[in-house]
Amino acid sequence: MNNTNTFIDLIIKFGGSAITDKNTFETIKKEELLIAANCIRSCREAGLSCIVVHGAGSFGHHQAKRYQVNDGFVTATTKDELDFKRQGFCLTRQSVTKLNQLVVNCLIDVGVPAVACSPGSSWEVDKKLPVRWPDEIIAGLVEKGFVPVLHGDCCVDKTLGCCILSGDTIIKSLCNAFTTRRVVFLADVAGIYNRPPDQPGAQLLKSILVNSDGLIQESVCTSQSCNDVTGGIQLKLKTAIDIVVQSKGRCPVFVTSIKSPDMNEVCLGKDSINHWNATSITMHS
Amino acid sequence: MNNTNTFIDLIIKFGGSAITDKNTFETIKKEELLIAANCIRSCREAGLSCIVVHGAGSFGHHQAKRYQVNDGFVTATTKDELDFKRQGFCLTRQSVTKLNQLVVNCLIDVGVPAVACSPGSSWEVDKKLPVRWPDEIIAGLVEKGFVPVLHGDCCVDKTLGCCILSGDTIIKSLCNAFTTRRVVFLADVAGIYNRPPDQPGAQLLKSILVNSDGLIQESVCTSQSCNDVTGGIQLKLKTAIDIVVQSKGRCPVFVTSIKSPDMNEVCLGKDSINHWNATSITMHS
Repeated sequence: MNNTNTFIDLIIKFGGSAITDKNTFETIKKEELLIAANCIRSCREAGLSCIVVHGAGSFGHHQAKRYQVNDGFVTATTKDELDFKRQGFCLTRQSVTKLNQLVVNCLIDVGVPAVACSPGSSWEVDKKLPVRWPDEIIAGLVEKGFVPVLHGDCCVDKTLGCCILSGDTIIKSLCNAFTTRRVVFLADVAGIYNRPPDQPGAQLLKSILVNSDGLIQESVCTSQSCNDVTGGIQLKLKTAIDIVVQSKGRCPVFVTSIKSPDMNEVCLGKDSINHWNATSITMHS
Repeated sequence: MNNTNTFIDLIIKFGGSAITDKNTFETIKKEELLIAANCIRSCREAGLSCIVVHGAGSFGHHQAKRYQVNDGFVTATTKDELDFKRQGFCLTRQSVTKLNQLVVNCLIDVGVPAVACSPGSSWEVDKKLPVRWPDEIIAGLVEKGFVPVLHGDCCVDKTLGCCILSGDTIIKSLCNAFTTRRVVFLADVAGIYNRPPDQPGAQLLKSILVNSDGLIQESVCTSQSCNDVTGGIQLKLKTAIDIVVQSKGRCPVFVTSIKSPDMNEVCLGKDSINHWNATSITMHS
């Protein structure tokens, strides 16, 4: 599972909070989704090969939480509990694939040859980590000029029975299998701040430098209470650091707002990093 | 790819003509789909493990035909022709996965823990035949009490670029990988006739016996003009014979109408074959 012959210019994450309204059940942010789709069109027109991964936002989360899908089957002991858990798995999966259908439709509408690649029916997972997945299918789609569209999904888990496979974990696996030139996270905030963005004195960190041991030099508030406020940003930072380290610095990661005027430039990688309203996470030289 | 440790009691095909109106673009037959879904519920209540495969009917066919997806990329030589073909692939895929979403929703609504398993993002295909596919994922879903739902789909093809992978080919692969107890095709006709059902003297063949070399003893009109009239029935017969032969007679195949009152009995396998309004295809002893 290390298809290093395949080069991917851009793996882009459409954040769940960026393309859906997290507070309203199964609601997309149409305008933001269209912006993101048009960005992929621009990248393709510039000759870049792309893979899109999106989060779930207000699709799937509600069902996954209600039925505790991420705890697996191990907590269900009676037949009724098992039936309930299975129902939750099915409803969660249908909800996230419904969003996937909307995302792929939007991409196709603007002229991107997008192909839904839902992980739940093909990724082998154990203890929430991918064990085997159809890397050759994804590579084949990219080589033939398509844009595979993956997403966070519920999967059968060898040990736990079932679990949620996050979009961030999927991106790490993709970066591990393919030689990836850059990863961009489209968020609902401008990037990564030194503390929660709504606190006084919060500053956007334009550059975060990672040592080969995964430690960073910048001061970023990482306490649990900060996590609550910044949402998934801390997890994104962890994913970003992992990608930079596992690629030995060859794959830089960027976090930017889906509404940033620099978004296309960040994805295309055309201009100077320092002018962008974004956070770059790169290896410390 | 021969997971013989997994037993499947029933692989059932929801025929494209049976669950959609073939003459009207992207239109399902709600009543028929509900009947089929309730049949699966009955089978599950009787303790049977099931896999559902459905055809495309008026979903996907229109797009696949217009863009000639089944001819592959080999006929496209210019950039515009390639872009056109890719667009056709994407539109076809979105249309069949839209039907898949409706089928899975209907199954979940009646209490069946159905999970969409779209082949286009995970089946490796060469010259229209499956080379590798996630048999362990399908087996894992069945073992955990789910009902995987697959469908005819467009796939990346190693030699042709792209192609249509038919539901019938998928069923043959499933039967090859798993020890399958019975296969049922739900059609829009009562079964297989000795000549096209609308011709005078056409008789329903209640039993077709297959020799180990794949030849059958009954007289079935198989000329091209008959094919045109009987729709996909001739192809179903070919698939059925292949399944019986490859299983060395261990897996009988049945063709029956989605509207037959015997349909549940055929799927459950409870009653005497001779009373059913259906065609059984079995090995000649």
